[in-house]
Amino acid sequence: MLVNKHCQPTTNKKVPMMPLQAAELLASAPGWSLSDGGKAITRNFNFKTYVEALGFVQKISEIAEKENHHPDVSFGWGYASITFTTHNIGGLHQNDFIMAAKVNELD
Amino acid sequence: MLVNKHCQPTTNKKVPMMPLQAAELLASAPGWSLSDGGKAITRNFNFKTYVEALGFVQKISEIAEKENHHPDVSFGWGYASITFTTHNIGGLHQNDFIMAAKVNELD
Repeated sequence: MLVNKHCQPTTNKKVPMMPLQAAELLASAPGWSLSDGGKAITRNFNFKTYVEALGFVQKISEIAEKENHHPDVSFGWGYASITFTTHNIGGLHQNDFIMAAKVNELD
Repeated sequence: MLVNKHCQPTTNKKVPMMPLQAAELLASAPGWSLSDGGKAITRNFNFKTYVEALGFVQKISEIAEKENHHPDVSFGWGYASITFTTHNIGGLHQNDFIMAAKVNELD
């Protein structure tokens, strides 16, 4: 189970995940879809207020600090959009799907 | 001084600010520029880490709750982009510039 794994350090010598592998891992991350031309994964969430959206973002941020793998976040009144990519390899890594699975547990 | 004012309730019967007035108020909000075709104002900030960016977003969120006027936020490792618009009038209102001035005080 991805959700029980932990993010591993990456170096810029690694290559991004191939699209086929990304598609397979997406199947285990309900609600997430490819973004940025397949270099990232994104999920949109809805909330009733700004504070609820912020609270969700704060919970994700705690996990991100623990795993040392951080999202790009857009949020405001009633919504949050969470994106993971592995910046130093310029694309997707298993770490992104581990984070997606952990975020899904919060939902 | 805008920074000492407080946001006022708006209704969707109000009309958005005219471009000339927006341009005048921008002069008192250093770092902010028009976005979304003149319907919003945005400022980008840089930070050293994810946690610093989140901390800044949290401080803005406290002011936003107090003033009941909330930003649209994009942030991640080392950056935050803050946008204000007055959604229920579909454009800019003095409230947006009051918030911009208050955010500038945090910087």
